[in-house]
Amino acid sequence: MFITLEGGEGAGKSTQAATLAASLRRAGHSVLLTREPGGAPGAELIRETLLHGPVAFTPEAETLLHFAARFEHLTRAILPALAAGSIVVCDRFTDSTLAYQGYGHGVAPERIAALAAMLPAKPDITFILDVSPEVAALRLAARSRPADRYETLDDGFHARVREGFRAIVRAEPERCRRIDADADPATVAAAIRAALAALGIRTADPP
Amino acid sequence: MFITLEGGEGAGKSTQAATLAASLRRAGHSVLLTREPGGAPGAELIRETLLHGPVAFTPEAETLLHFAARFEHLTRAILPALAAGSIVVCDRFTDSTLAYQGYGHGVAPERIAALAAMLPAKPDITFILDVSPEVAALRLAARSRPADRYETLDDGFHARVREGFRAIVRAEPERCRRIDADADPATVAAAIRAALAALGIRTADPP
Repeated sequence: MFITLEGGEGAGKSTQAATLAASLRRAGHSVLLTREPGGAPGAELIRETLLHGPVAFTPEAETLLHFAARFEHLTRAILPALAAGSIVVCDRFTDSTLAYQGYGHGVAPERIAALAAMLPAKPDITFILDVSPEVAALRLAARSRPADRYETLDDGFHARVREGFRAIVRAEPERCRRIDADADPATVAAAIRAALAALGIRTADPP
Repeated sequence: MFITLEGGEGAGKSTQAATLAASLRRAGHSVLLTREPGGAPGAELIRETLLHGPVAFTPEAETLLHFAARFEHLTRAILPALAAGSIVVCDRFTDSTLAYQGYGHGVAPERIAALAAMLPAKPDITFILDVSPEVAALRLAARSRPADRYETLDDGFHARVREGFRAIVRAEPERCRRIDADADPATVAAAIRAALAALGIRTADPP
């Protein structure tokens, strides 16, 4: 079972991914909690270049770098974990590339789809955490670390990204569930657990 | 006019690219002499990671990294030079990815072709410098710098790369010219100038 969490800046993905992984572990599952870009040594090198490197890449190059990192991540970490029977919980995956580089930066969606079709695995279920700009701004302002390259892009960019994620839910309703991420973290976590329960996946209630 | 030079390790591409660029400049052309991976700041970052970085990537990730660097190189350097009326002489391009990652490392040729089809430009003419393993070994032994990641791969790998380049010449005879790169540098340079003269491109004789 390969679960991804997606959404814009300030949607609470990292918090929810960690909460979900803990809840699955308490229910007895073996879990790999991971995130993109990154999750394997080569992919982490690419992450550093993308988020904090000295060069801003063209959107096409950025897209290819994300997929290079993704291949590395899948081959070295995700596929071995799935083969060993673990549940994989991943903070961001291909939908982020479609939302950010496609909807946000204008890379043709067919190009991203062609790259996605090369991948050796895709998520079984994806939670799209949909957050309003107002709530996202409050959450970002509360962070102590410096902003990365994506967080500093303008409001128009982030509005296109949000619309991109919503379009992905409409296009793939079987795989994707929209979650209202303006809600408090406990409510969001309960919505995710309820969706998994409906698929027959055991999770534990919060401790 | 976008000219590429291709071939395995020790084929003499860099020497011939520099010689050709000088010959074109003496004939009055404006010339951009460049090479892959690299040729633009972001592409140079990727080059460093690929050739000397701490991580060996999966062949698929490596392929995507080469194409990311190539998009950067095309957008930032090659297309502006072509638009300004310069002749571009490039040491390695997509054929190297097909020969090394495809024939050498087993990435499906259709994948590489799909990536190549996304590029905004392709070479007008390509010289494939075909060198025997014996001559290549002599040239590599004479180099003073340390070997990079590709130069240290085994003989079987380099034999597949050579066969890959030969297959490319057979598949695209209009664009690609095989040049016997076992010959001395002056003979190779003369063969390249003769092929360009047949296309109506002026070059100057050696000084």
